[in-house]
Amino acid sequence: MNAAVRGVVRTADALGVHTLGVEFGYRGLIKDRMRELDARAVSGIIQLGGTILGTARSEEFRTPEGRARAAANLKGRGVDGLVVIGGDGSFHGAQALSDEHGIACVGIPGTIDNDLGGSDFTLGFDTAVNVALEAIDRIRDTASSHERLFFVEVMGRRAGWLALYAGLAGGASAVLVPERPTDIEAVRERVRGSFEMGKTFCIVVVAEGDDAGGAYGIANGVVEGTSLDSRVTVLGHVQRGGPPTMRDRVLGARLGHAAVKALLEGQDQIMVGERSGQIIRTSLETAWTDNDHDAGPLLELIDLLAR
Amino acid sequence: MNAAVRGVVRTADALGVHTLGVEFGYRGLIKDRMRELDARAVSGIIQLGGTILGTARSEEFRTPEGRARAAANLKGRGVDGLVVIGGDGSFHGAQALSDEHGIACVGIPGTIDNDLGGSDFTLGFDTAVNVALEAIDRIRDTASSHERLFFVEVMGRRAGWLALYAGLAGGASAVLVPERPTDIEAVRERVRGSFEMGKTFCIVVVAEGDDAGGAYGIANGVVEGTSLDSRVTVLGHVQRGGPPTMRDRVLGARLGHAAVKALLEGQDQIMVGERSGQIIRTSLETAWTDNDHDAGPLLELIDLLAR
Amino acid sequence: MNAAVRGVVRTADALGVHTLGVEFGYRGLIKDRMRELDARAVSGIIQLGGTILGTARSEEFRTPEGRARAAANLKGRGVDGLVVIGGDGSFHGAQALSDEHGIACVGIPGTIDNDLGGSDFTLGFDTAVNVALEAIDRIRDTASSHERLFFVEVMGRRAGWLALYAGLAGGASAVLVPERPTDIEAVRERVRGSFEMGKTFCIVVVAEGDDAGGAYGIANGVVEGTSLDSRVTVLGHVQRGGPPTMRDRVLGARLGHAAVKALLEGQDQIMVGERSGQIIRTSLETAWTDNDHDAGPLLELIDLLAR
Amino acid sequence: MNAAVRGVVRTADALGVHTLGVEFGYRGLIKDRMRELDARAVSGIIQLGGTILGTARSEEFRTPEGRARAAANLKGRGVDGLVVIGGDGSFHGAQALSDEHGIACVGIPGTIDNDLGGSDFTLGFDTAVNVALEAIDRIRDTASSHERLFFVEVMGRRAGWLALYAGLAGGASAVLVPERPTDIEAVRERVRGSFEMGKTFCIVVVAEGDDAGGAYGIANGVVEGTSLDSRVTVLGHVQRGGPPTMRDRVLGARLGHAAVKALLEGQDQIMVGERSGQIIRTSLETAWTDNDHDAGPLLELIDLLAR
Repeated sequence: MNAAVRGVVRTADALGVHTLGVEFGYRGLIKDRMRELDARAVSGIIQLGGTILGTARSEEFRTPEGRARAAANLKGRGVDGLVVIGGDGSFHGAQALSDEHGIACVGIPGTIDNDLGGSDFTLGFDTAVNVALEAIDRIRDTASSHERLFFVEVMGRRAGWLALYAGLAGGASAVLVPERPTDIEAVRERVRGSFEMGKTFCIVVVAEGDDAGGAYGIANGVVEGTSLDSRVTVLGHVQRGGPPTMRDRVLGARLGHAAVKALLEGQDQIMVGERSGQIIRTSLETAWTDNDHDAGPLLELIDLLAR
Repeated sequence: MNAAVRGVVRTADALGVHTLGVEFGYRGLIKDRMRELDARAVSGIIQLGGTILGTARSEEFRTPEGRARAAANLKGRGVDGLVVIGGDGSFHGAQALSDEHGIACVGIPGTIDNDLGGSDFTLGFDTAVNVALEAIDRIRDTASSHERLFFVEVMGRRAGWLALYAGLAGGASAVLVPERPTDIEAVRERVRGSFEMGKTFCIVVVAEGDDAGGAYGIANGVVEGTSLDSRVTVLGHVQRGGPPTMRDRVLGARLGHAAVKALLEGQDQIMVGERSGQIIRTSLETAWTDNDHDAGPLLELIDLLAR
Repeated sequence: MNAAVRGVVRTADALGVHTLGVEFGYRGLIKDRMRELDARAVSGIIQLGGTILGTARSEEFRTPEGRARAAANLKGRGVDGLVVIGGDGSFHGAQALSDEHGIACVGIPGTIDNDLGGSDFTLGFDTAVNVALEAIDRIRDTASSHERLFFVEVMGRRAGWLALYAGLAGGASAVLVPERPTDIEAVRERVRGSFEMGKTFCIVVVAEGDDAGGAYGIANGVVEGTSLDSRVTVLGHVQRGGPPTMRDRVLGARLGHAAVKALLEGQDQIMVGERSGQIIRTSLETAWTDNDHDAGPLLELIDLLAR
Repeated sequence: MNAAVRGVVRTADALGVHTLGVEFGYRGLIKDRMRELDARAVSGIIQLGGTILGTARSEEFRTPEGRARAAANLKGRGVDGLVVIGGDGSFHGAQALSDEHGIACVGIPGTIDNDLGGSDFTLGFDTAVNVALEAIDRIRDTASSHERLFFVEVMGRRAGWLALYAGLAGGASAVLVPERPTDIEAVRERVRGSFEMGKTFCIVVVAEGDDAGGAYGIANGVVEGTSLDSRVTVLGHVQRGGPPTMRDRVLGARLGHAAVKALLEGQDQIMVGERSGQIIRTSLETAWTDNDHDAGPLLELIDLLAR
């Protein structure tokens, strides 16, 4: 996300627009925690994981009173427009702030799950998948003559994109995602089939939001009543950090630039995204309603190649 | 490229088609160095850098006699179609082999420079840029009170895409590419301007094919007659190795699968590529003629953000 | 471990000694799965994670009958001496094989837990700690205004060295290891103290063999009855793979070389290790009895610096 | 180095001692650029490459006038002791400052070349070698049927340790260091021998201070008059950055702690180092006079294993 912050600040600076950075998201907006960001302030941040501004959840911003306080702070500082990096929840908040207080809001898709409409990919997704992939690669190295099963739990509460891309790129035998009901018996059969074909180990990638539960529960279910041996890795917040990949930085730079341009052209309640290499603008609403990408083709390809 | 090899072999296996792997490219084709590749033979290769089949140049394949020998070997083994992973030169060879001997050929774009038409990205490009980016990140860490200039030479003889993406993602002050004539004086002014704005160091990314020469020569030219201090890094073949990124593996899997499907549908002299997330087919000729992507927008964004 | 295999093979080759590689450890020894290893066979393996020979457990080798079969295979192939890379269990097996059948055995310390006497460090330890450290770094990046607690479970059933080194290098607030009884209440107080001192998040590293249980259980115990928010990462076998670090490769090369020299000098039932930069030889028995390194100083330093 | 800064600050804090951080080394000392460092100020820095305090050279500090100004600044702020992280040059300066102005000085070995007496390893060396090693690994991946020679130039003006450790760990065919006169003809013969033994490529690691010149010159010399094909990589400052390894962080923490203890015990003009895992103290003079480690055994092992 730092690449997007840098893109916003430097574009604004080049166009003679003043920028403030809000610390810790909507919580900081309510507490008036903002600081000047000029071209120098965003030097040396492009390679840092996380965000220099911090993140936080804010229950208070979900209330009209909280948003009124935030709007008062913004107006008190003479702010005309807001760039919001986030997902579903952040965009609902932005929409309400705009509706209720006339603050122009432009969103940048920034969820790790890639679960938004209006952009092929969200900021942070490419980095998170590569981190998960590196973990899977390391597990593959522990070659063994055992018929051993490895379960790797990755992020993804409502969407399995991270699991799907990591699983396809990592050569997983199976990928379990919220988009498809998980049949423990079928997983067991798949794995047995792989062992019979000569595989000495299988890797199963599990999205945390899978309907059959977390990796530990699924692992126990699959090996129950068999002589199979299983091992579990839960990546957790490891996926959220680390230096961003090239794709995430280039996307951040482009979207940061596009967000400022959109605000200066009078846009409001829209999200900037990238589709087929082009910057596009969609309504904020589209971002959270039109997020039903079809996981089918990826699942098919994974199934086909997992021989 | 191993992801593409795996994609080809496993797709073929799933469809009941037999696959041979040719070692060391056209040279191996002429020497009849081929080996059986079944689903197990491509296990555990997806995370490896380079290619399990090896690469080589072959002067002999540029002659009709060389190609006749290759075709004889292929026919002797009952091969009906060939998947060629490579660039301009490889595709010219494939076209000639098809024209002269009727071997159906399907190409997969696999150059590090991303210099082909018919696909948004080539296999290996994403990995190479991320390697270059990691080097740039490390250089950024060596903070200093000196006004120091770092020159990083990356691959790219005819096309500067690697330099452009690495430079944008790495926060370079300037990127010198074959697509734009390099003015040493202008680079010096740019750098001086950055130092005056408070920067303590500048990174300049140079594509090896830049018209002003290699990084050493350019560095000497820029600091000549000034008190500036410069340091040079030449990445060389470092960019060609290492575990491929998620994008390269997913692209490899998809294109490997698509190439087999195309051959089975009777296609010949085409390349499979990815445009806007969709698999497309273009003529091999398009790949080497329609490669004039416009570097302008990226250069503009780099110039704008390098404040 | 591949660096050690290469060191053994190339040293032997240089000294005119023939080498066989046993696949999948003692299991392969019993099944007579051995293959010729010459200087070329160990080319290009030094950077690979895991081991090219594979690993496996063997219940059968724990029986006199199993060992008799293994010895017969070795003698049938004219093998005079055996280099065993492993830990406690492997060395017990080697000792028995030597005692019962006169096969000269030299051990190389190769456990991820660093839980052997006779060597400052075991092969694989440096790599495993660096992998764990990288995960901790990524978690640190997810800056937050929450007072959030991260628990990272690393390997170490009987010894907490991996947790201690990763925790000290990763700036952990607390490290829970088998060497010291864990007091959940004390952990809670430590963490609260950190938050009061202005920390916005704390990382607790847990060795899997800690007396208070795994990371999930400890995390639940610590946050119970508080408003603290916790997240868990379980690294699992991720720590066993990946390209080995410089230290592990240099250690492997040196110990592989030393093991061959020791066998040629008629040594038996010893382990080669490195102490203070020097190669030393100790009895195999020492390796598993003299492994009570004192974790005290490291724990003290961690406690002192975790302010 | 940040781990050492953290170690100094937190140890001092725990012992009730106040700490100032001097920005940009001796230059900052002369310009009175110092800032308060409390326990919180060194949070979140342990994983960062470079140093949060910056580095710089200072010609002025080599003069008695410069040192007098620095001493006046230190005394004006009530500073009793100075911890200096650096090498030869920094320690000469510290000694002079102590001699002339009675400022107690304790050194921490912090050169990338590992060229100091009084410590097995210097801070930053382990990280730099691992970075060089990763580059060598990537080059190894670019398997080829060509008989191709890769030259990798690493840091090391007067000492070849970085080249030796990287070369041994990276499986180099030859390592050229200042400690041994380089015979171009012998390198050519070595390489030819390797190709005759079936190697398809050779990697030669060159320390920048080698007597035969830089990697480009050596490469040209070796291939001259042959049909060999060479490629050059010059790592440069890439080796100075990036997240430090576990070893460097643990060493930094230990030495930072030991430096504060030494100052509090009234020590002056000494360096703290680590030998055989123990913290030791030697005179600053020892650090720069007793640095003639014997490169012989490593060179022998490299030659033996490079078959």
